[in-house]
Amino acid sequence: MLIVQKYGGTSVANVERIKAVAERVVRTAKQGNKVVVIVSAMSGETDKLINLAHQISPNPSDREMDLLLSSGERVTTALTALAIEALGHKAIALTGWQAGIITDSVHTKAKIERITGERVINALNNGYIVVIAGFQGITGEDGEITTLGRGGSDLSAVAIASAINSDLCEIYTDVDGVYTTDPNIVPEARKMEKISYEEMLEMASLGAKVLQTRSVEFAMKYNVPVVVRSSFSDNPGTLVTKEDKDMEKVVVSGITYDKNQAKITLIGLPDKPGIAAKIFTDIAKANLIVDMIVQNISSDGKSADISFTVPKTDINKAFKLAKDIATDLGAVNAIYRDDISKISIVGVGMRTHSGVAAQMFDNLAKHGINILTISTSEIKVSCLIEAKYTELAVRVLHDAFGLAQGATA
Amino acid sequence: MLIVQKYGGTSVANVERIKAVAERVVRTAKQGNKVVVIVSAMSGETDKLINLAHQISPNPSDREMDLLLSSGERVTTALTALAIEALGHKAIALTGWQAGIITDSVHTKAKIERITGERVINALNNGYIVVIAGFQGITGEDGEITTLGRGGSDLSAVAIASAINSDLCEIYTDVDGVYTTDPNIVPEARKMEKISYEEMLEMASLGAKVLQTRSVEFAMKYNVPVVVRSSFSDNPGTLVTKEDKDMEKVVVSGITYDKNQAKITLIGLPDKPGIAAKIFTDIAKANLIVDMIVQNISSDGKSADISFTVPKTDINKAFKLAKDIATDLGAVNAIYRDDISKISIVGVGMRTHSGVAAQMFDNLAKHGINILTISTSEIKVSCLIEAKYTELAVRVLHDAFGLAQGATA
Repeated sequence: MLIVQKYGGTSVANVERIKAVAERVVRTAKQGNKVVVIVSAMSGETDKLINLAHQISPNPSDREMDLLLSSGERVTTALTALAIEALGHKAIALTGWQAGIITDSVHTKAKIERITGERVINALNNGYIVVIAGFQGITGEDGEITTLGRGGSDLSAVAIASAINSDLCEIYTDVDGVYTTDPNIVPEARKMEKISYEEMLEMASLGAKVLQTRSVEFAMKYNVPVVVRSSFSDNPGTLVTKEDKDMEKVVVSGITYDKNQAKITLIGLPDKPGIAAKIFTDIAKANLIVDMIVQNISSDGKSADISFTVPKTDINKAFKLAKDIATDLGAVNAIYRDDISKISIVGVGMRTHSGVAAQMFDNLAKHGINILTISTSEIKVSCLIEAKYTELAVRVLHDAFGLAQGATA
Repeated sequence: MLIVQKYGGTSVANVERIKAVAERVVRTAKQGNKVVVIVSAMSGETDKLINLAHQISPNPSDREMDLLLSSGERVTTALTALAIEALGHKAIALTGWQAGIITDSVHTKAKIERITGERVINALNNGYIVVIAGFQGITGEDGEITTLGRGGSDLSAVAIASAINSDLCEIYTDVDGVYTTDPNIVPEARKMEKISYEEMLEMASLGAKVLQTRSVEFAMKYNVPVVVRSSFSDNPGTLVTKEDKDMEKVVVSGITYDKNQAKITLIGLPDKPGIAAKIFTDIAKANLIVDMIVQNISSDGKSADISFTVPKTDINKAFKLAKDIATDLGAVNAIYRDDISKISIVGVGMRTHSGVAAQMFDNLAKHGINILTISTSEIKVSCLIEAKYTELAVRVLHDAFGLAQGATA
């Protein structure tokens, strides 16, 4: 098999961890596989560099930040190749551009445009384990160093796996897979064997901790099978793959929650076309990221109410803007709440099972949890509730949908 | 003027030092100059990386070491450019390869083959201060990262200064110039205003601390005026330049010493052609670096004695080899001494002044310092003496040749 293995910052945090990575890589190669390794910077290094830059400049230029931040992965790439060589296996370390990762020129959050993987494939065919610096690329035109944004090494791994037609892309991190919910809240949370790309994307808050969202989108688009697993154990991880019949049997795959949202409601907006467009164009211009949007006809039947959520850290800026917009549009009032959280159930099985949302609402109600807002997609139902009920809601739903260890799904 | 400024590791050791560098650079630019800045890694960083590599592999590959070590200069290059921008001046950071520094493929001690400086010149013409990572380059053929060896940033600076026809190459370090001798031994040691390339090269032990030898050779070959000065003060430094009439008036420019040599003598070698060649070919094959070589007809007039010095750390290996060679060649005996030091006087004025060597010997004799071996070149006389007399000899000669502060040379 041709396998891409990506090791995150905690997996290469020090000399001992790097040696452990090398041992796993060489073991994989000795089992008859060709292996490409993508590494992140040693944990803490990127933050250290960012901190240095901010001590020097309140507003550092993106181009120079990329040059700065790309150095961390070069260190681990070289050290990992040395560790593999020390075990007696041929290894070659490549920077992003040496591996042919060509990006657009949007510094600090570049998009991969193409990967010219010949050098990687040649090295593999010559018996080398190829170690590639994650998170970084180069612009095709003028040879500028770029980085792919936070968590970008996951994207590097998936993109390279796709470019060289790898059979598998393993993402090694410090957790051993994707769980049905946060084990800190529900100790019985179960590690999933398999999850679909779509579910992984909808699991956002839960999933993003283990796998960068863009890398999941990329993997889905190019159908790259991804396994999330721990570099600290030999436990099998969670396979992220395209939906199969098997998955549909499970109605709800996971429960997620997000405590970092605040909700703004504009009350009594005129009920005519173009209002929502106007609001969210202005919000977007201010670089505010909106998660949920819900619109209802107002209680008087003649005007509309619109609610939306923004990250809690942006609430002051967002609410000020929202009030201005509301006034402009002739709304009655604008209010906000920041003592809320979002609870979601996710599962591709919802497509073929009815009554799932009702079951969710019913279980919350049974425990006295009031629902403030509801939003649904094809494979996800989200409710805003009072923040103090977060843990209770997660436990109730995890139990209600039979997700616990030992439970039959 | 077009000025290249190179800042060493102590000059960019932390955020405050980098800000100070940026201020000096911007000041230079505001005086109407175009400025190119070459930076080393923050002091201690390269050693830290080497240490990491050796913890991972007892014998790290040169190619991966280059990738590893080249990361340090990238960090300071980016940070320095950010610091300049923070002062309101346009700046662009370039890696070695972005600046067009093309080298051969001898990893960890690559030689610069050519510099394609268009990108640097374009940026200068567009009003940018150009900050370039020292110490590193790229192979022209296959795009491998190379480094130029310890002190290689000096060479980067001089080579770039030559490639872009810079008027001046300033090397900023933590000392404020080249002194007539070690101020730790002779407090009256005087900072030289000017020194010739040849003298700088002959000052080896003294000079190498402030300016890498290869960079001096390069500057001499391409006639690049180099100023060595401190980044911690505004003192004018020492100009290293081609020999001029002025310099010849000074008979002796500096006194150097070297305590790290040991002397091996082969006694009673057959006095016939090819003997010396045989000895030093074998020594070279063993990668031993020989400094002084002196040959004399032996006391019996029929055989020859050969003495040579090697670094003290190599004396065991070298003496074992020398004994074997001596036996092979039918020598009478082989002996060594490691309680010696080498004292040298250096000055281009020697070419036009006679009796300088005699004056040196006379002054040493007057203070009871016995001379073990003598070796001379056009602008240098070196004596091996007993190590315990080193400081005395340096003071005596510094005084005898009138090098003290306030003395008229």
